[in-house]
Amino acid sequence: MTASARRVSIVEVGPRDGLQSEEVLPTEVKLEFIRRAVDAGIRKVEAVSFVHPKRVPQMADAEDVVRGVPKRDDLILIGLVLNQRGFERARDCGIDEVGMVVVSSDTYNRRNQGVSSLESIEAWLKIAKEAKKEGIRANCMVSSAFGCPFEGEVPPERVVEYAERVAEGDPVELGIADSIGVAVPAQITDVLGRISERLPGLPIRVHLHNTRNTGLANAQAALDAGVASIDASIGGIGGCPFAPLATGNIPTDDLLYLLSRSGVETGVSLKKIIETSGWLREQLGHGDLPAMLPRAGIFPDVAMGAQALIHTGETA
Amino acid sequence: MTASARRVSIVEVGPRDGLQSEEVLPTEVKLEFIRRAVDAGIRKVEAVSFVHPKRVPQMADAEDVVRGVPKRDDLILIGLVLNQRGFERARDCGIDEVGMVVVSSDTYNRRNQGVSSLESIEAWLKIAKEAKKEGIRANCMVSSAFGCPFEGEVPPERVVEYAERVAEGDPVELGIADSIGVAVPAQITDVLGRISERLPGLPIRVHLHNTRNTGLANAQAALDAGVASIDASIGGIGGCPFAPLATGNIPTDDLLYLLSRSGVETGVSLKKIIETSGWLREQLGHGDLPAMLPRAGIFPDVAMGAQALIHTGETA
Repeated sequence: MTASARRVSIVEVGPRDGLQSEEVLPTEVKLEFIRRAVDAGIRKVEAVSFVHPKRVPQMADAEDVVRGVPKRDDLILIGLVLNQRGFERARDCGIDEVGMVVVSSDTYNRRNQGVSSLESIEAWLKIAKEAKKEGIRANCMVSSAFGCPFEGEVPPERVVEYAERVAEGDPVELGIADSIGVAVPAQITDVLGRISERLPGLPIRVHLHNTRNTGLANAQAALDAGVASIDASIGGIGGCPFAPLATGNIPTDDLLYLLSRSGVETGVSLKKIIETSGWLREQLGHGDLPAMLPRAGIFPDVAMGAQALIHTGETA
Repeated sequence: MTASARRVSIVEVGPRDGLQSEEVLPTEVKLEFIRRAVDAGIRKVEAVSFVHPKRVPQMADAEDVVRGVPKRDDLILIGLVLNQRGFERARDCGIDEVGMVVVSSDTYNRRNQGVSSLESIEAWLKIAKEAKKEGIRANCMVSSAFGCPFEGEVPPERVVEYAERVAEGDPVELGIADSIGVAVPAQITDVLGRISERLPGLPIRVHLHNTRNTGLANAQAALDAGVASIDASIGGIGGCPFAPLATGNIPTDDLLYLLSRSGVETGVSLKKIIETSGWLREQLGHGDLPAMLPRAGIFPDVAMGAQALIHTGETA
């Protein structure tokens, strides 16, 4: 087990994983979302995915979003690609980093990407090679690594096997995703421990959903396992408004509170993230977002006294 | 650091910490709540508090609730007391265990209990002695141990100092509470580590609120520190309907999912807890409760396929 990282990079995935579950927003609103995240100190944004607009209309303006974000040397814009065609679109609009996905279960991979998991690994290896040639960063995420909605339990051995094959493409980061929010910390510790044993030194990024309230506990387990790159979405968006079963990514707001209060540096302003969360809530217009910090407030803070009143008369 | 416990006792605090923030419920509904929790496998219930009915009208029927629960050898009913008068009421109605509270900040202790923290410690020591004489179990909780709504940061040294003084009363468990939900796992690890160093072998119970989404992460940190007794409330009730800033205890539903999927035994049926959570939601009648398992469903489970659909077309 590696020592816990003292500096963590938050990958803001709201514009991609968050907005793909929402009503289609205008390109200008997406650009403002990214602008605000960057202004708060975020330096890695998963901004879009390059998939067929018929399947995910929310991402139809991917090229416009990528081209619309002002370039800066310290900002990495990530675009998700699921195949060669997606990679070409990403490359052609000047993305900084492409992210490929391999699902840990064949059933889900076929539903998601139309091919087997092993075929997706082959596609990744080819994309990784081309990306390197083009000077584009490339990551790959092994997803549904803690449970599959179709197949149920996913053997950790399979996750490690896929991780090892993905690693042959020399990703800038290897992602491990709890795509449907079923993981518990013991699983995170187990799987990340196995991976770091087999692939020591490979930077790991985790992608977690808070579907069963274990998201931040899983993030902490990842931190304890030495992970220094964590996906999150401002406001915790990513739940589907049409599917009450689903909930979003772990909220950037709440993760940042946990990290900053633990003395972990991120370079991100919690105050500005909370402001952006409020702004985003208005843009989406369907009430409170899952993030809890915007409702509870930063601690310690000036407004503390008010909060106490509700407890007075009976403690604990 | 002790090894993580493989068996954990969940203390159901919904009837006390949960219901004290709700509209007053009839005694029969409270008894049905407790009956259902016990039927699900819960064996420790913080059922009531013995405080002045003018201050907490929700607990005015404390004696009736305690007398109304059928006695059984394997069930421990806990009643909260804040002073000698409360202890006498608890004793007179035949409570199994009394729980006293000492707040880690003087300002809050005075607001809550009308005396200084040190005076509350003295009261505890007296109560502990009398309880022992009467054959009543007695615990004491050091509350607001990770932050005070009035004073801000609470020095861990003070928490340890109070814990040591409380320990002189030989509590069946020493409680450590994050009463306002501000803690992060690093704090839990720090404070519990300090306490187990100074008071090795003393059973610790933790009481956590999920106000800032860190509740389950804190529970996991407590587990990792060897804690085997965790407070939770079915549905995650405990937020005040009149105070949107507040949220409840960590939900029994979600904690139990984390524990059972981690291989930790509790003797409690998650299915029955979720059923009770649904029943409680109807009784309270103000919409969804904070617990997430009732909405997301147990994993792995039969209804898995449906959940996947919302992700198809775009993974991670």
